[in-house]
Amino acid sequence: MNQDIPRGIDPLATTLACTLAQEHVADIVETLNEQDAATVADVLLALPFERAVEVLDQPEFAEAPAALARIPQPRAVALLHAMSADRVADVLAELDEPVREPLVRQLDRETQATLTHLLTYPEHSAGALMTTEFVSVPESWSVGRTLEHIRRVERSRETIYAIYVLDPQTRALQHAVTLRRLISGDPQAPIASLAPPHKPITVAPETDREEVARLITKYNLLAVPVVDLAGRVIGIVTVDDVIDAMIEETTEDVQKLGGMEALDEPYRQIGFFSMIRKRGGWLSILLLGEMLTASAMQVYEAELEKAIVLTLFIPLIMSSGGNSGSQATSLIIRALALREFTLKDWWRVALRELPTGATLGAILGVIGVLRVVLWQKIGLYDYGPHWLLVAATVGTALIGIVTFGSLAGSMLPFVLKRLGFDPASASAPLVATLVDVTGLVIYFAVAAAILTGTLL
Amino acid sequence: MNQDIPRGIDPLATTLACTLAQEHVADIVETLNEQDAATVADVLLALPFERAVEVLDQPEFAEAPAALARIPQPRAVALLHAMSADRVADVLAELDEPVREPLVRQLDRETQATLTHLLTYPEHSAGALMTTEFVSVPESWSVGRTLEHIRRVERSRETIYAIYVLDPQTRALQHAVTLRRLISGDPQAPIASLAPPHKPITVAPETDREEVARLITKYNLLAVPVVDLAGRVIGIVTVDDVIDAMIEETTEDVQKLGGMEALDEPYRQIGFFSMIRKRGGWLSILLLGEMLTASAMQVYEAELEKAIVLTLFIPLIMSSGGNSGSQATSLIIRALALREFTLKDWWRVALRELPTGATLGAILGVIGVLRVVLWQKIGLYDYGPHWLLVAATVGTALIGIVTFGSLAGSMLPFVLKRLGFDPASASAPLVATLVDVTGLVIYFAVAAAILTGTLL
Repeated sequence: MNQDIPRGIDPLATTLACTLAQEHVADIVETLNEQDAATVADVLLALPFERAVEVLDQPEFAEAPAALARIPQPRAVALLHAMSADRVADVLAELDEPVREPLVRQLDRETQATLTHLLTYPEHSAGALMTTEFVSVPESWSVGRTLEHIRRVERSRETIYAIYVLDPQTRALQHAVTLRRLISGDPQAPIASLAPPHKPITVAPETDREEVARLITKYNLLAVPVVDLAGRVIGIVTVDDVIDAMIEETTEDVQKLGGMEALDEPYRQIGFFSMIRKRGGWLSILLLGEMLTASAMQVYEAELEKAIVLTLFIPLIMSSGGNSGSQATSLIIRALALREFTLKDWWRVALRELPTGATLGAILGVIGVLRVVLWQKIGLYDYGPHWLLVAATVGTALIGIVTFGSLAGSMLPFVLKRLGFDPASASAPLVATLVDVTGLVIYFAVAAAILTGTLL
Repeated sequence: MNQDIPRGIDPLATTLACTLAQEHVADIVETLNEQDAATVADVLLALPFERAVEVLDQPEFAEAPAALARIPQPRAVALLHAMSADRVADVLAELDEPVREPLVRQLDRETQATLTHLLTYPEHSAGALMTTEFVSVPESWSVGRTLEHIRRVERSRETIYAIYVLDPQTRALQHAVTLRRLISGDPQAPIASLAPPHKPITVAPETDREEVARLITKYNLLAVPVVDLAGRVIGIVTVDDVIDAMIEETTEDVQKLGGMEALDEPYRQIGFFSMIRKRGGWLSILLLGEMLTASAMQVYEAELEKAIVLTLFIPLIMSSGGNSGSQATSLIIRALALREFTLKDWWRVALRELPTGATLGAILGVIGVLRVVLWQKIGLYDYGPHWLLVAATVGTALIGIVTFGSLAGSMLPFVLKRLGFDPASASAPLVATLVDVTGLVIYFAVAAAILTGTLL
């Protein structure tokens, strides 16, 4: 335990700190996230300094800004200096101006410059995700000297499992060497001799985190270097940060697929009005779109009055179109995300969805016909003297609508991508709404073709 | 390049092998996956042995089984012996019996036993995902001796970044030490002195891959050891395998959310009939469910005939219920996956969704009323003498249906989880179908309450 615990700390917090000190840092964070800011601040003061830094360095530690604001300034500044630069940037960004400014002014020049730099990168870019604590050595060094260097700096680096070998003059990245190669290499050999023959995989600071995740996944990397235009390494994105980003992306995609804007915060924490805004916007847009169905039905009101039996099947037929569209959309969103297709492959998908949709439509059409025939024969309902024609209308309409739904649902992500939107914005509700109006038109067109002269 | 290239290799394949030899292994795999099996087999023969093994070790290398089947048996057996055991198990599982059997019989006893063992674990479990090539040392060893050992075995281990320290007698796992601590440690110190104070994080062989991913993510691990009941390490799951599993899980979840069974293969590769089966099943079930709307409307036929104007708003009102339900479902599926909630928190969610749904319903209700009033006033459509009452019916029904939709959509994942299903099976189309029938009943109940005596 820390020897010089400042006075005035709640004894309960000291006890908690004692219990937590032996735990895994992720478990400490989990416990602290459920305490109030005053307790968290006290626990951070009571924990050994190194341990407190480790806790503060966790991106999952949501209480960090509030707790830092309550810690006596000299100690807070010491903690900030010991934390990793990317994490400091994130924590400071969440503090209010009056609390942040005095803290920043106490930091040393170099840290201030790094912070300013880190804060300029756009959200979700490699630059915003990267840490500046990595290991780099000039190409002229030997394996032994590099290993010696790593032993010295190990504590202050986020990861040491990849070593970046730089041109001694330009400091441009030449090779990436893994620690496993390094420790089994000949200490006398030049460091470059351990490098793989291919060029190192790199990203630019403005590369989107999805692309960073794709590269780390494809090449099974533990970290990817972020290089500037001159080829100099300005930071690295580590695999654990990428995993966190992937989970966030999945959450966003699932929420968008459900027909809403992605939440910025977890469900449990988001405020009532933010929630209403994120959901109400899309619901209102979809309602406005769906109003076209009312307009379409107004057009067909004469037919509806003549054959009220047609209204019975409207929800059933429309929902089948929406459902097949929703299936096709979610398939294509994922296939696009996994780079199975690019934009120019849209016609391949269309050629595939057309027969698939028609077959699915035929299956549903048969079920629909059976329903009408069965109810009529058993005597559950009387669809009138032309019930066979009604059955034919329902069946044919289902084929047409499911085919159209599959095609429209599969094309929507391509259209959105082409227009520069995220294809994942093609939600199930959006597809359903688009397909509904067309579905009505198809239904009444089929009815007119089959029933004119009898019911209509 | 390999000196003893077997005769009879296509010279084009040799040229391709020459070009590829300098590439990153992931890029070689990408190129080979687009060639036919004969060419791939030739390239594998022409590549340096070590490089061919590295290529075969990639789980992304889909052509591996077909290519191995075409490689002369002695060479194929040599390649299999050099590959990692978990990958050999995966590749062999994909070969047909007549090709697999002779190959397996040529493998040494130990490899055969490991393979049999690996194949017994259920799909998607830690046991099926793990590799048996990890570094473990007895607790009695020093830091220096451990490092010496790692230098010797480095080539044959999938990862050396975590070292598992075992009880010398029982071989039970005592500590997990990271390579970074090891290389900066004092060579004379006992290896256990570098271990963190908390117990190592472990999983059982039957642990689901989602839980493995959660632990690796939470504790920022590069690998997690899989231990048997006696606490002995039987394998490790590495972070890159976990990332691949996470991507697969996301694909499955998105497809299920779209209202279909998850595909076993990528969209581009799955056969026509598999595709129909995966989509047709759910579409048919949803159609059968949606048939209840036809039954419900049959009940209200008398009302529909009296007030045909009511039918105009059916699609609009029903889809709003489905949309709000779809939002709530996707929110809760994700919150459950991220462990924001457990089963017993259902009432917290219900208490949250009730006011949220009512507010969203009120917003949509106002828009709905405005629509009717506007069309009537502008003269776009005549809703009859009781148009104000029609507007009130639409508005009130929207409040009721959106509230019900949000509540039903948020509770469905809990119900599915309680019944032992995957909460992610609560698709947007399923929620919409469930909400549709209730939506109709709410609509006609509201209409009866407001319009009886005037329109009804």
